[in-house]
Amino acid sequence: MTVRIGFIGLGIMGRPMGLNLIKAAYPLSVYARRPDMMEALTHQGATACECPQEVASQSDVIITMVSDTPDVEHVILGEKGIIHGAQADSVVIDMSTISPSATRRIAETLSKQGIQMLDAPVSGGEQGAIDGALSIMVGGKEEIFQRVLPIFEVLGKNIVHTGGHGAGQVTKACNQIVIAQTLVAISEAFILAKVSGVDPAKVRAALLGGFAGSRVLETHGQRILDHNFEPGFKARLHQKDMRISMEAAHEMGIALPGAALATQQLNALIGEGLGEEDSSALATILERVSGITI
Amino acid sequence: MTVRIGFIGLGIMGRPMGLNLIKAAYPLSVYARRPDMMEALTHQGATACECPQEVASQSDVIITMVSDTPDVEHVILGEKGIIHGAQADSVVIDMSTISPSATRRIAETLSKQGIQMLDAPVSGGEQGAIDGALSIMVGGKEEIFQRVLPIFEVLGKNIVHTGGHGAGQVTKACNQIVIAQTLVAISEAFILAKVSGVDPAKVRAALLGGFAGSRVLETHGQRILDHNFEPGFKARLHQKDMRISMEAAHEMGIALPGAALATQQLNALIGEGLGEEDSSALATILERVSGITI
Repeated sequence: MTVRIGFIGLGIMGRPMGLNLIKAAYPLSVYARRPDMMEALTHQGATACECPQEVASQSDVIITMVSDTPDVEHVILGEKGIIHGAQADSVVIDMSTISPSATRRIAETLSKQGIQMLDAPVSGGEQGAIDGALSIMVGGKEEIFQRVLPIFEVLGKNIVHTGGHGAGQVTKACNQIVIAQTLVAISEAFILAKVSGVDPAKVRAALLGGFAGSRVLETHGQRILDHNFEPGFKARLHQKDMRISMEAAHEMGIALPGAALATQQLNALIGEGLGEEDSSALATILERVSGITI
Repeated sequence: MTVRIGFIGLGIMGRPMGLNLIKAAYPLSVYARRPDMMEALTHQGATACECPQEVASQSDVIITMVSDTPDVEHVILGEKGIIHGAQADSVVIDMSTISPSATRRIAETLSKQGIQMLDAPVSGGEQGAIDGALSIMVGGKEEIFQRVLPIFEVLGKNIVHTGGHGAGQVTKACNQIVIAQTLVAISEAFILAKVSGVDPAKVRAALLGGFAGSRVLETHGQRILDHNFEPGFKARLHQKDMRISMEAAHEMGIALPGAALATQQLNALIGEGLGEEDSSALATILERVSGITI
């Protein structure tokens, strides 16, 4: 029997992910707050629903792809939420990036009604979503992960199950703090090069061949050199992800000084009104501070 | 006519580099402060000298591979230094990692006597030196770079000429600040994972496949997971390199907050008496602060 999928949240990421599921011949029920957001999918055969509860009532697997922790809590546990429509042993897969501890609480609430949950945040941005090439970091029970793995394989390429409930969100938080700090690092390297009369493009090329090489230096490094901050991945979303890490550090009583510093740079970037730019625009904050244009 | 090479400084890096030059059939004159350091090379046919001046007097190209700015100034410009023995149009290649501004001053002093200079610091560590696989970052005149390129090709694989005098040192400084900050970033990611009950090894594997992937995560990440801090690249040398970057930031009037933070972690590591360990032992400082063992 074909697995029936529900999809809630049809933004920049959710829409192409939903389209890939339709292409893979999954029957799809969809819900988005703004009805016009559903059209791209209903034109391809998806069924529009009035609320998350309705989506859940006609789905075996319900994927949520919304903005932040309160949004996930609302569509899963709120009035007309998934919990009121989902059948026992159906699976809720939250692919949003939200708080690990909130994820564990939601999973526990769902489990009391026999509803399974996985947290499965992604990285790879809009292009990764379109290409079905996302990295997917999954937390939850191994057997449930195996059950829905064919669905993940439609959406992504680098699919890793890292532990129990919340582990996917923790892994995503780790991913985001590493990327943010690498952005700070290469921005500083380019500023040091520029002020010293050395071409930052040559520094990028030299570093790529050695131990300082990274995907961030390769892709975001080129964006920074070009001052091309077309997203990509929006700074305001990266800031939100860093807030989640900072909250986790606070809850857990650990010090993440490098992540905190990068968060402050992103805060300043948002304050400059540049939240819609790619998060690599963080380099411009360091440029301003030192009066240097890379 | 075969180029005669002089080599000054036969430590962990200099000795295998010198041996590779002998294997490539270059006649080699050597000098080290401690005479016993020369034996490995004289046994292979190198000529031992009494001082840098003597090395220079019998060489067309003189390579220096010593610890820090004052050491380079001493062996090049000091009493019995290279400048007193080198012939006009000979080439001094400083492969130490030192201050870019001091490099420019040394090059200027040498040029007044018609002696050419390149700065050519390396990365890749002892293993890279042994394998002839170093990354070499070169500053100085293009024509001089081309003239000695065959020598660089014996010593390294990723050889990049990034600009005029000092550009190699600037590039190396950029390299070191990126690596140090990436070390902080992945240490924090592993601490966040561990405290959250997620296996840091799984986080490393997950991140390697995506945008957070880097050479540092791959190699140093594994060292940190294993708590294997056998160098590699010694923390006290990384600290020295960061001091050079911090001095450059001070001289140039630029802010490098992320590099400064990583420098402080390295300072604390040295203060703990761990300067002889691999610089990835920086992770242990973050572990101690939060009372977490990765």
